[in-house]
Amino acid sequence: MAEKWSFLQDQDVLDFNRDIERYHLGPLWHAIPDLMKHQPEPHAQAYLWKYSLLEKKLMEATQIFTPDRGGERRAIYLQNPGLNYRKPWGWASTTQTLYAAVQLILPGETAPSHRHVQNALRFVMEGEGAYTIVQGERIFMERGDFLTTPNGFWHGHGHPGTKPMIWMDCLDIPTIYFLGGTFFDPYPERLQEPEVPDNYSAQRYEGGMVRPISDRYPKKAPLAAYKWKRTHEALEGLSRFEPDPYDGYAVEYINPSTGETACPTIASWMQKLPKGFHTKAHRHTHASIYHVFEGSGYTIINGVRFDWEKGDFFVVPNWAWHEHVAEEDSYLFSTNDLPILEKFGLEREEAFENNNGHQTVTGEFTPVLG
Amino acid sequence: MAEKWSFLQDQDVLDFNRDIERYHLGPLWHAIPDLMKHQPEPHAQAYLWKYSLLEKKLMEATQIFTPDRGGERRAIYLQNPGLNYRKPWGWASTTQTLYAAVQLILPGETAPSHRHVQNALRFVMEGEGAYTIVQGERIFMERGDFLTTPNGFWHGHGHPGTKPMIWMDCLDIPTIYFLGGTFFDPYPERLQEPEVPDNYSAQRYEGGMVRPISDRYPKKAPLAAYKWKRTHEALEGLSRFEPDPYDGYAVEYINPSTGETACPTIASWMQKLPKGFHTKAHRHTHASIYHVFEGSGYTIINGVRFDWEKGDFFVVPNWAWHEHVAEEDSYLFSTNDLPILEKFGLEREEAFENNNGHQTVTGEFTPVLG
Amino acid sequence: MAEKWSFLQDQDVLDFNRDIERYHLGPLWHAIPDLMKHQPEPHAQAYLWKYSLLEKKLMEATQIFTPDRGGERRAIYLQNPGLNYRKPWGWASTTQTLYAAVQLILPGETAPSHRHVQNALRFVMEGEGAYTIVQGERIFMERGDFLTTPNGFWHGHGHPGTKPMIWMDCLDIPTIYFLGGTFFDPYPERLQEPEVPDNYSAQRYEGGMVRPISDRYPKKAPLAAYKWKRTHEALEGLSRFEPDPYDGYAVEYINPSTGETACPTIASWMQKLPKGFHTKAHRHTHASIYHVFEGSGYTIINGVRFDWEKGDFFVVPNWAWHEHVAEEDSYLFSTNDLPILEKFGLEREEAFENNNGHQTVTGEFTPVLG
Amino acid sequence: MAEKWSFLQDQDVLDFNRDIERYHLGPLWHAIPDLMKHQPEPHAQAYLWKYSLLEKKLMEATQIFTPDRGGERRAIYLQNPGLNYRKPWGWASTTQTLYAAVQLILPGETAPSHRHVQNALRFVMEGEGAYTIVQGERIFMERGDFLTTPNGFWHGHGHPGTKPMIWMDCLDIPTIYFLGGTFFDPYPERLQEPEVPDNYSAQRYEGGMVRPISDRYPKKAPLAAYKWKRTHEALEGLSRFEPDPYDGYAVEYINPSTGETACPTIASWMQKLPKGFHTKAHRHTHASIYHVFEGSGYTIINGVRFDWEKGDFFVVPNWAWHEHVAEEDSYLFSTNDLPILEKFGLEREEAFENNNGHQTVTGEFTPVLG
Ligand SMILES: [Fe+2]
Ligand SMILES: [Fe+2]
Ligand SMILES: [Fe+2]
Ligand SMILES: [Fe+2]
Ligand SMILES: [Fe+2]
Ligand SMILES: [Fe+2]
Ligand SMILES: [Fe+2]
Ligand SMILES: [Fe+2]
Repeated sequence: MAEKWSFLQDQDVLDFNRDIERYHLGPLWHAIPDLMKHQPEPHAQAYLWKYSLLEKKLMEATQIFTPDRGGERRAIYLQNPGLNYRKPWGWASTTQTLYAAVQLILPGETAPSHRHVQNALRFVMEGEGAYTIVQGERIFMERGDFLTTPNGFWHGHGHPGTKPMIWMDCLDIPTIYFLGGTFFDPYPERLQEPEVPDNYSAQRYEGGMVRPISDRYPKKAPLAAYKWKRTHEALEGLSRFEPDPYDGYAVEYINPSTGETACPTIASWMQKLPKGFHTKAHRHTHASIYHVFEGSGYTIINGVRFDWEKGDFFVVPNWAWHEHVAEEDSYLFSTNDLPILEKFGLEREEAFENNNGHQTVTGEFTPVLG
Repeated sequence: MAEKWSFLQDQDVLDFNRDIERYHLGPLWHAIPDLMKHQPEPHAQAYLWKYSLLEKKLMEATQIFTPDRGGERRAIYLQNPGLNYRKPWGWASTTQTLYAAVQLILPGETAPSHRHVQNALRFVMEGEGAYTIVQGERIFMERGDFLTTPNGFWHGHGHPGTKPMIWMDCLDIPTIYFLGGTFFDPYPERLQEPEVPDNYSAQRYEGGMVRPISDRYPKKAPLAAYKWKRTHEALEGLSRFEPDPYDGYAVEYINPSTGETACPTIASWMQKLPKGFHTKAHRHTHASIYHVFEGSGYTIINGVRFDWEKGDFFVVPNWAWHEHVAEEDSYLFSTNDLPILEKFGLEREEAFENNNGHQTVTGEFTPVLG
Repeated sequence: MAEKWSFLQDQDVLDFNRDIERYHLGPLWHAIPDLMKHQPEPHAQAYLWKYSLLEKKLMEATQIFTPDRGGERRAIYLQNPGLNYRKPWGWASTTQTLYAAVQLILPGETAPSHRHVQNALRFVMEGEGAYTIVQGERIFMERGDFLTTPNGFWHGHGHPGTKPMIWMDCLDIPTIYFLGGTFFDPYPERLQEPEVPDNYSAQRYEGGMVRPISDRYPKKAPLAAYKWKRTHEALEGLSRFEPDPYDGYAVEYINPSTGETACPTIASWMQKLPKGFHTKAHRHTHASIYHVFEGSGYTIINGVRFDWEKGDFFVVPNWAWHEHVAEEDSYLFSTNDLPILEKFGLEREEAFENNNGHQTVTGEFTPVLG
Repeated sequence: MAEKWSFLQDQDVLDFNRDIERYHLGPLWHAIPDLMKHQPEPHAQAYLWKYSLLEKKLMEATQIFTPDRGGERRAIYLQNPGLNYRKPWGWASTTQTLYAAVQLILPGETAPSHRHVQNALRFVMEGEGAYTIVQGERIFMERGDFLTTPNGFWHGHGHPGTKPMIWMDCLDIPTIYFLGGTFFDPYPERLQEPEVPDNYSAQRYEGGMVRPISDRYPKKAPLAAYKWKRTHEALEGLSRFEPDPYDGYAVEYINPSTGETACPTIASWMQKLPKGFHTKAHRHTHASIYHVFEGSGYTIINGVRFDWEKGDFFVVPNWAWHEHVAEEDSYLFSTNDLPILEKFGLEREEAFENNNGHQTVTGEFTPVLG
């Protein structure tokens, strides 16, 4: 290969490149090896953020970002170090395609209603008493709940409770920014008023793989909030059988009117890894963002060990070998961009064949503490 | 109209018809008024079968149909009186398109495994201890459970328990018979052997609108059995809000891998009508078969009152005006052919506008008792 | 098998059947062997109608059916002898699911505009100068043209020309009649007025596998008429390569906005069989109606030879073995119900393996002449 | 608005940002105004490349890029000046999502067979005698032909003719690079060998909206080459009627097995603007790359006039107002990313309402000549 492309460094070639660049032209022969890789070489890095750091910075941010200063949300996003080169703001990229953040709301605060073409989802980490109001439905959030706010839905937050509340947000911000088709509208009032009873949709889906007949035809999000209690029941049932070798016991949140993943562009999973379970390694074209909902353990990504405990976040970039080890019963919430890659026929998966499916550990990630 | 078509009775026309009939030809002008109605004039009639009758006949049938005599199933089907003209066997038509039956299995009996292109579903009425084995999964059935057995799945039954067990079957037999594409295969052995743990799929779906990740891609029936406990929870949640004016609180069983109705060609509903609830009348192109799971009340179909109680079955033909009244808290299981009509763009619905949505009762159905 | 089901003729069984019949109940064990066949046993028969007969009867019908008498269409349908038992009017069944007819319009006549839920298509056999007006587009028809009139489109005919015009109609009348969801509306005036230029849609699709950008989103019939000249060009191109062993050179008319078959429920083909070409035999679950547009030859259906020449029609029932032989260059137009069978997962095909793919001829069909 | 966000420049906010950046964290409140615009603010610029320049540079490149030096293709891409900031190689971005290039092959040269997950299409500008071999089909190219090479298809080129040949390439390189799922394989031999007759697929589609029956089920590219002769016929037919106010007479190349756009991620159009025709202005979220196949005229993009003549290329970025004026009968080939935007629900369009739909010209683009 080196052979084949060595002419690219010849002086006449470099001169020609510089010449045509003046005319806003480029030499494909030179760009091909960089842009059309033989297999994915993601720019995103494997990385891990400690919860203690995130919580500390969120608390500090209560001084910086206050609702009366006028911003939209007190959210701190996880910027992948490999994607800092994207300007501006690293495109707020946690992976190549997705944004993830932690958000904190204090009792008495509100976050204004708005809507945008970016798809969003939320996973509740800590606290209670706050609500989100999505398309006229006020939803009180509890730890472990999963919520979806698709493209074009009005949403705002309020907190009539007594303790700070923290959740994870995940959106397709980098993807929509790349595509260039963003639209964003503030709601005419600070917060939309409720149009249906509180917690309406979750109560309409309290059990069974059944659907109210009025949701027969495709809707973007007939079910807005997936309660932890129900998700937990699902995992308990599933856990009676053989685990998936790569993912243990894992479920995906779905849209009951279409059977598709709950948030149109982002797959969301909750998975249980029983104490002592060690998955086999594999890799796939989609990238994942993991949040440790419960438990502790470690994940080996391309040979590097990332230790995690409750509250932490970590990224498995696309096409990176990875395997998980649970040191206590653990629950991992995760999001990934498989729905986006599928739209382009890019999904591929490969099992790690050597060494009975286990990587050799060649290093250990040292998290940055605040 | 009479005017327009009066020529059809002229002698020269009738002579011509008789002439071309010899050549296997027909006069469209004559057939149009009969075959292309201005609106549906179903051949199926509104009808009701009492449970006491069905149970009695099933018990008698234990003497007639015994497993060692060699038939497939001890099932007695509900033959719509309006469709007796279909030869042979009335095509076993409960409605224009669907077959419904009650089936009884005695302790110690088995019903042989087979498969066919007809889609089937089952709803458990009485008893316990019997199982069905569908595509290698043995499923123990309990009252209120709903099961689906799509096109091509092996299925057979066994009864290691101690009491007779009765369930409802619904299949698309008349439709497939009409189309003429039937295939039916007996299993090489009497009963297929289990290939997964008992009650496998229902345990994989014990809660929440979430799906095991291995069921991400469309399958015919990733969930084979929908437990009554879960369906009941769903109805309880739904019942906290406003009822649907035509159907009260109603849910449809869905296939979690596609979001479509659970059985490919037959929609299946469970609905709750609270005591005293009186729905408004409407009509639609799809026809329904109702089974009274719990409660009592009556349904007015095209002006005729059909009283029902626990265990009864009744048919609402297509395009018939109908409204329900519950005299106690009632649960109605029902199946309908909307998925079939949708394939042909034939779904239409109309509300009964007069008299605040309520029909005038002009008669009362007298059920035949055994 | 005989063994297995012999109990069905026992007296106690027959008595029981008669007993429950009084209650509108039926014994599944008895009906299964008749209704759920191990493989298709179509009621439709292989049959052939000579063009000379059809033309003669159409001409006679000009005396019987006149526009001022008030009927809708002067069409004589091909009634399959095996489906006469369907009452009334044999459901106008040419095959189990489809209706086919020949229609004649005289210069100066009109056929009133109407619409219905049945899907229709037309293939032009003889004459020129007549038009059909479909959903506001007036289309002048020429020999070899194919037209589609889907569910719900207004259509009527007029004939400002000088010679009788004859075409074939094919509709899904038996299927819609079976389903029971018919709707039919006369147009408020005798004939709809044109809303676009004459022959509009065919001119918008004069070449290439390209689509006017305004037809990007699914429409029922963006292209209403497929001109013979274009279809012929397609067959000429295709004929430069290897023929399909079962069908020679065959093309299907498609809806350019969806890529689906042109008429929603009925596939339509034009195929060329070069002189001397002898296809291999196969069978499939869908049934076909053939019209000999040009040429002569014969088709062997389940061992019986059906000789055909220009203008004739013949039916290949579902699951019947069939092979074609062309004695001169021949063009066969045909319609089939594969789109209907696919909706139910019923499509299957089987090659005839013995004797190098050729059946033994065991008989010859003798057509009835008028 | 300025008001609302003014706190973002406060020192404490800036300090906090700098602090959390060290931990690979980012402040959403700061990034929102930049990343989630109220409406699209594309980075791509309106730009135009003269054919004389492109041809000159391609000819010069015959000295730089020679097949024996080992690169893949002698293609020079059009690098949008607004997207130079993307590193490396500006991601070869002509628009936000698409790559366009001109490619030249000399008689006697070959370009090696390879395959990749990027979707590609080709439009033939000049010359004759070269072929491309796509998935085993050798296709001889002529001026005006359109070709598609979807994700995963092997393709290489050869030139047994006598004159240089030039074509346009368009691929989704920037999009796939952004997503990070690239795969690329060289073919084991220099060029794949033919597996079907030359020009096979175009001959199978020589006329009519009909499809060989073997292409009934979805294929990625049953038709590989769309001949100019046919496309031209389509435009002639369409031109008999009223033009589209924004696009004149425009057709989209389609995949005959699915009815979708021919190249899975890139819509391709050919449009005719008759001499003197002046379209109305509009804007939409998708961006377009235009190539002037024939004729001359100008396009006003966001108030700036871009004069064009035969061979030129120009870009209309997403959400830019644009209108075209033809000074002679003109044919514009264009590609756009609507299929990509549709996958994310981002398609929007807006008509320019003022001044009877026409922009005020505020400037003129001065092309750079070589
Ligand atoms: Fe938001
Ligand atoms: Fe994984
Ligand atoms: Fe069965
Ligand atoms: Fe109803
Ligand atoms: Fe009609
Ligand atoms: Fe056939
Ligand atoms: Fe390539
Ligand atoms: Fe445009």
